Amino acid sequence: MSVTAAKGFTAAGIAAGIKENGNPDLALVVNNGPRRAAAGVFTSNRVKAAPVLWSEQVLKSGQLSAVVLNSGGANACTGPKGFQDTHATAERAAEVLGTGAGEVAVCSTGLIGVLLPMDKLLPGVGAAAAQLSEHGGEKAAIAIKTTDTVHKTSVVTGDGWTVGGMAKGAGMLAPGLATMLVVLTTDADLGSDALDRALRDATRVTFDRVDSDGCMSTNDTVLLLASGASGVTPGYEEFAEAVRAVCDDLGQQLIRDAEGASKDIRVEVVGAATEDDAVEVGRSIARNNLLKCAIHGEDPNWGRVLSAIGTTSAAFEPDELNVAINGVWVCKNGGVGEDRDKVDMRYREVHIVADLAAGDATATIWTNDLTADYVHENSAYSS
Amino acid sequence: MSVTAAKGFTAAGIAAGIKENGNPDLALVVNNGPRRAAAGVFTSNRVKAAPVLWSEQVLKSGQLSAVVLNSGGANACTGPKGFQDTHATAERAAEVLGTGAGEVAVCSTGLIGVLLPMDKLLPGVGAAAAQLSEHGGEKAAIAIKTTDTVHKTSVVTGDGWTVGGMAKGAGMLAPGLATMLVVLTTDADLGSDALDRALRDATRVTFDRVDSDGCMSTNDTVLLLASGASGVTPGYEEFAEAVRAVCDDLGQQLIRDAEGASKDIRVEVVGAATEDDAVEVGRSIARNNLLKCAIHGEDPNWGRVLSAIGTTSAAFEPDELNVAINGVWVCKNGGVGEDRDKVDMRYREVHIVADLAAGDATATIWTNDLTADYVHENSAYSS
Repeated sequence: MSVTAAKGFTAAGIAAGIKENGNPDLALVVNNGPRRAAAGVFTSNRVKAAPVLWSEQVLKSGQLSAVVLNSGGANACTGPKGFQDTHATAERAAEVLGTGAGEVAVCSTGLIGVLLPMDKLLPGVGAAAAQLSEHGGEKAAIAIKTTDTVHKTSVVTGDGWTVGGMAKGAGMLAPGLATMLVVLTTDADLGSDALDRALRDATRVTFDRVDSDGCMSTNDTVLLLASGASGVTPGYEEFAEAVRAVCDDLGQQLIRDAEGASKDIRVEVVGAATEDDAVEVGRSIARNNLLKCAIHGEDPNWGRVLSAIGTTSAAFEPDELNVAINGVWVCKNGGVGEDRDKVDMRYREVHIVADLAAGDATATIWTNDLTADYVHENSAYSS
Repeated sequence: MSVTAAKGFTAAGIAAGIKENGNPDLALVVNNGPRRAAAGVFTSNRVKAAPVLWSEQVLKSGQLSAVVLNSGGANACTGPKGFQDTHATAERAAEVLGTGAGEVAVCSTGLIGVLLPMDKLLPGVGAAAAQLSEHGGEKAAIAIKTTDTVHKTSVVTGDGWTVGGMAKGAGMLAPGLATMLVVLTTDADLGSDALDRALRDATRVTFDRVDSDGCMSTNDTVLLLASGASGVTPGYEEFAEAVRAVCDDLGQQLIRDAEGASKDIRVEVVGAATEDDAVEVGRSIARNNLLKCAIHGEDPNWGRVLSAIGTTSAAFEPDELNVAINGVWVCKNGGVGEDRDKVDMRYREVHIVADLAAGDATATIWTNDLTADYVHENSAYSS
């Protein structure tokens, strides 16, 4: 049900001709109110795509009536013309929906450094508006796919209210955020401050801890829109937990669909002195190409885990480190532990536990193995 | 000529049976004086192999009579027993050479987390000593290979003095240092302070700027030994330049032999506000898996260069960035520049220039493309 699971929202997804292969490439999500509260988080990359610059600006009001999303082009590194194109997209959506451009966010995804075909995109906004429906969430989720093999949606239901969402993303997945566009909707009756807080709390421990390939996008956007249509104002904790659950589910779907991956790796750091230490160590392990190749080869190579930990500034003593792979403590006290032949690596899920023996803090980072398919997919992407 | 190009040195390389395939795996380099000055730099990984801990300790005296090097096992993450094994190796070498163990450095390379077969290694030290020769440099260089496809040596001759060296390394190549063992020798008549300064000045701009796969080893060691046998004391600048030239040459050889690589990429950052900024940006570009895949596919994907720059804290404005690939300025002022079809990517050498337009500082980082062969080699390494 995606972004139309919550009451007060309509959506559409169409093929506007932006993608040369004719696949769906334009989505529209509309908040029909009565409220139009919204919040957003964006890439921390300093090179930001035009739609990110635009949407950050319009979000300052805490109000959104609609979101236009396109695949088939990231509109990043496209200069003043790229920004004008984003502005024109918002203007066109505002015109056909009878709202102001300052309440329309824009998200784009695809190749960097290419101008969007505005002669296709602008008419597409009108065509999408004509197909808006309370059942359009699925089509919207499909229209934002790039190298995604599946579309991603999630729904959590509260007591009389709902949070739903859609996501795209399959590569360039790294903190700050992963390369992804996410639109979440709710019919809970909440203002933009509560949305903002819940969204930041959720993304910090979900999307920000998905690190498929260490590469940070120019276009990452996560939006949360509230219609108030349920008339219910849930307690903050209850609502925040629902938002976190939807983000967690979508984040897991991103990892499972990561480009070329054959293993999903859960890197759980325990015994850290601080949560920051745990996150730093988790990221270092998750980004170690040699380890990611070893996991691909079903080799429980704990030495590469230790060498990754050794590059961090976290509190630990080398001779107190412990590492378990799929439940077998292959490294104890910085040296050889249980027999590595006991580790069963046949399944897609791989669980690495790194125990720093320095405190009680923990964090989990999600990543993938590094495969020949990843290389192939990303060396042929723009050709 | 390797480590025996300079007068006063003998070396040997033999098959001691450490490697199961019977290839050469043990090297010995001996300084016959009259001086025995030495300096060393080591991995900045906090998880250090036993031979690194040992050699750092013995180097404090500024004196080395010999270096024992083995491939076939890194002796890293091997606990107290591993350190005892390194100590026993130095003791055995000291015994057969008639010196003290405190003047014997030890270097090991191979798989992490496995104890060395000391029943093979210790007799091997005696066997290597029996074959020490002024022409043994080549054999020593061969004996330290792991996944290297070629052995690496280099020599620079001054006015009556010489600097020569050998290196191993083909993967896990990243700053701090690359995964490599390097022994440099000279017959210049210099003390350990001058050697230390020249070595640090050289490695900072050579090995420390080789970043093949972003992975930092537990065993990196670069040693410089001076015999004084030429009787010549060169000026510091002249000597330092020779050490830098040998390090640069060996560093280039490491990059050209990097595991699975099909392209050698020179990332030159110009227009930086500071050298630190230039190095940070260069490393970020060199470590971007998506860009490395694109280069493998001969795709001049400058968008991935910009997204890598955007993750750094260097001084720059996104709309002032310029990027050239193989001489074509494909990105100007943060957007589309010259026609990317003009970029000729057919050759192994690829030259990326990133102009931050923020100052006059520069730095060059050397890296490789990311290939299916790299994945294959590193997923099958320990099996």
